[in-house]
Amino acid sequence: MSDHVYKKIELTGSSTISIEDAVEKAIAEAAKSLRCLRWFEVTETRGHIVDGKVEHWQVTVKIGFTLET
Amino acid sequence: MSDHVYKKIELTGSSTISIEDAVEKAIAEAAKSLRCLRWFEVTETRGHIVDGKVEHWQVTVKIGFTLET
Amino acid sequence: MSDHVYKKIELTGSSTISIEDAVEKAIAEAAKSLRCLRWFEVTETRGHIVDGKVEHWQVTVKIGFTLET
Amino acid sequence: MSDHVYKKIELTGSSTISIEDAVEKAIAEAAKSLRCLRWFEVTETRGHIVDGKVEHWQVTVKIGFTLET
Amino acid sequence: MSDHVYKKIELTGSSTISIEDAVEKAIAEAAKSLRCLRWFEVTETRGHIVDGKVEHWQVTVKIGFTLET
Amino acid sequence: MSDHVYKKIELTGSSTISIEDAVEKAIAEAAKSLRCLRWFEVTETRGHIVDGKVEHWQVTVKIGFTLET
Amino acid sequence: MSDHVYKKIELTGSSTISIEDAVEKAIAEAAKSLRCLRWFEVTETRGHIVDGKVEHWQVTVKIGFTLET
Amino acid sequence: MSDHVYKKIELTGSSTISIEDAVEKAIAEAAKSLRCLRWFEVTETRGHIVDGKVEHWQVTVKIGFTLET
Amino acid sequence: MSDHVYKKIELTGSSTISIEDAVEKAIAEAAKSLRCLRWFEVTETRGHIVDGKVEHWQVTVKIGFTLET
Amino acid sequence: MSDHVYKKIELTGSSTISIEDAVEKAIAEAAKSLRCLRWFEVTETRGHIVDGKVEHWQVTVKIGFTLET
Amino acid sequence: MSDHVYKKIELTGSSTISIEDAVEKAIAEAAKSLRCLRWFEVTETRGHIVDGKVEHWQVTVKIGFTLET
Amino acid sequence: MSDHVYKKIELTGSSTISIEDAVEKAIAEAAKSLRCLRWFEVTETRGHIVDGKVEHWQVTVKIGFTLET
Repeated sequence: MSDHVYKKIELTGSSTISIEDAVEKAIAEAAKSLRCLRWFEVTETRGHIVDGKVEHWQVTVKIGFTLET
Repeated sequence: MSDHVYKKIELTGSSTISIEDAVEKAIAEAAKSLRCLRWFEVTETRGHIVDGKVEHWQVTVKIGFTLET
Repeated sequence: MSDHVYKKIELTGSSTISIEDAVEKAIAEAAKSLRCLRWFEVTETRGHIVDGKVEHWQVTVKIGFTLET
Repeated sequence: MSDHVYKKIELTGSSTISIEDAVEKAIAEAAKSLRCLRWFEVTETRGHIVDGKVEHWQVTVKIGFTLET
Repeated sequence: MSDHVYKKIELTGSSTISIEDAVEKAIAEAAKSLRCLRWFEVTETRGHIVDGKVEHWQVTVKIGFTLET
Repeated sequence: MSDHVYKKIELTGSSTISIEDAVEKAIAEAAKSLRCLRWFEVTETRGHIVDGKVEHWQVTVKIGFTLET
Repeated sequence: MSDHVYKKIELTGSSTISIEDAVEKAIAEAAKSLRCLRWFEVTETRGHIVDGKVEHWQVTVKIGFTLET
Repeated sequence: MSDHVYKKIELTGSSTISIEDAVEKAIAEAAKSLRCLRWFEVTETRGHIVDGKVEHWQVTVKIGFTLET
Repeated sequence: MSDHVYKKIELTGSSTISIEDAVEKAIAEAAKSLRCLRWFEVTETRGHIVDGKVEHWQVTVKIGFTLET
Repeated sequence: MSDHVYKKIELTGSSTISIEDAVEKAIAEAAKSLRCLRWFEVTETRGHIVDGKVEHWQVTVKIGFTLET
Repeated sequence: MSDHVYKKIELTGSSTISIEDAVEKAIAEAAKSLRCLRWFEVTETRGHIVDGKVEHWQVTVKIGFTLET
Repeated sequence: MSDHVYKKIELTGSSTISIEDAVEKAIAEAAKSLRCLRWFEVTETRGHIVDGKVEHWQVTVKIGFTLET
């Protein structure tokens, strides 16, 4: 990790399956337009309930990536 | 989402399996006495350890539901 | 839980599989040198990204154990 | 304020008009079933957006009331 | 601690004597209507002042109890 | 709310009139370049003072919107 | 904004009308004895309830002002 | 509690006896120069240790008082 | 306080008597194996409830001590 | 500061020299693509260690800039 | 540190040079009117940007001093 | 960064020179007894004041290191 500058963006992924899958969804989306994704930090775990069950896990992550200069 | 009022209650679900299962346990319990559960927010993830392994995941969630008026 | 004193230490477990597995890794490591582990609290969930996917989940836990006197 | 015990509940009021109106909506709802409401604390101010405008203000308050014994 | 679900409520006890007494007051009040109280966490310590002395200690606690199913 | 990914951005709106108006200003600005704005969360309320009066309310909001894929 | 030193004080304004009015009340009071008020930050929004309605909004602000040297 | 403005100051009281006594010490000191003290909030509880025992409890409180206009 | 380095550890003391006694228990335990304890900071006050009364106060403190080099 | 809307972005600068230099690196990078940078707030100070010395200071800042409309 | 009472005030120092210099500026200003300054705690590090460089570091500190009785 | 487990410890370094030097002091001390130090996070910046100047910077860091298994 040399003298780079990183940017952090905040995304919310949603998944019907698990917290991990919601995070992967958010990262996969970010990877469509950004190269050099480096790390993430979970900042919030929420979800929607339908009929007394979790319908969607909604997990917010900050994703850090290298600014290519 | 019209002009409703929502109430939030705080429950801790426990599970021997996973964080997600502990959340589902808490929501299922709430659904026994409350209709109109809408969303949840995870506020704390803890657990008990026995013999160097997680015995129970204990996940606290705030659950929001519509007050029917 | 009688008149004991507990100590908390902070470990970060990493796993390619899941958040739960990263926690178990941290606890298993602590159990190598400490007896009487009692509970844990998740304080941070982060991870590394490679090629647009989560490579490692890195979960920090505070682990409480009984000081044997 | 003598030797009373107070309970706090957490409600989210919503309003198309203002933050203050959302708070009043939450308190009015609480007042339907509880006497002796005493104070509130705003814990979260959020809202929904439709067509580039705020459709609903959603304000969460903790409301304290005297437990009558 | 098996597969139970716990609920947390938030009460403020007040006492002219001490912080501990204010907590006991809050718990005693909760015990009138709820069985199976298990633990508490202090979330706020405040008080009222009259004539340059503490008139009341007001201590807010979250109290956890087992939901009997 | 299906399997979407949302992005959150953080804007500060300013207004000479009210907190609500500052929020609307921030959202209106975001709506110029982004479609599918969904919700906001107030994270900070500040302001500038001139001659002992509020000259500008400056309200920071996180705004969530759907990433269209 | 040159090489000044600023001091922050914390005041709570109350108003029967609105959050904004409570802030203005606090600032107006500070302006009676202090010149060079520069900015404020809202740190707490609370209030008293009478008969199921907000009687007073009580808004706490930190107010920054230039120390004149 | 009518349309007053309150000021909050932050003091640290110290005591060899108890947390409560440290708070009373801070309030008694404030009462020497300020009338109309109304409430306090504990913000920090610390202390010094000598020979494996607490030598001083050091408790920080915010104290609110009415500005007389 | 010269050019020392301090280490902080986190212990939870428990007591049937008071918050202060739980803190003293934690410090006394630390003093068995560590010299040069200097200060503590309370980070959490919790407890267990039996039969509607506090059975144990459980107070977590960070304890700072000089590393002797 | 008139009726503008500001956007905040979050960058992490790294430097082998100092905290201040890491902040300047982050701001210089932002200035390559954005005009009208106005202020920053440090949100996190971390770093990497090699051979018992700080190899890189990694400082995260939120940077506010005027949206030109 | 005997049975004193300390007061904390909050100042923001600004400097074109460094974070440390901004702290020293704030303390030097406080020392003009107050004797017995004892310690400080940094609560916020911000700054203004001009032409893609830090123009001023603005560091907020709480400063504790002994109340002489 | 493969499947390791990391431990975090919390140290306070002090320096008469700068924040950076206080951090280096803490890390150098840790490096005397621990190999494989990897990263640090600043959690608190405080200091002592003598004669209206900073006598010591006291910076608390969490230091992460690899547990060698």
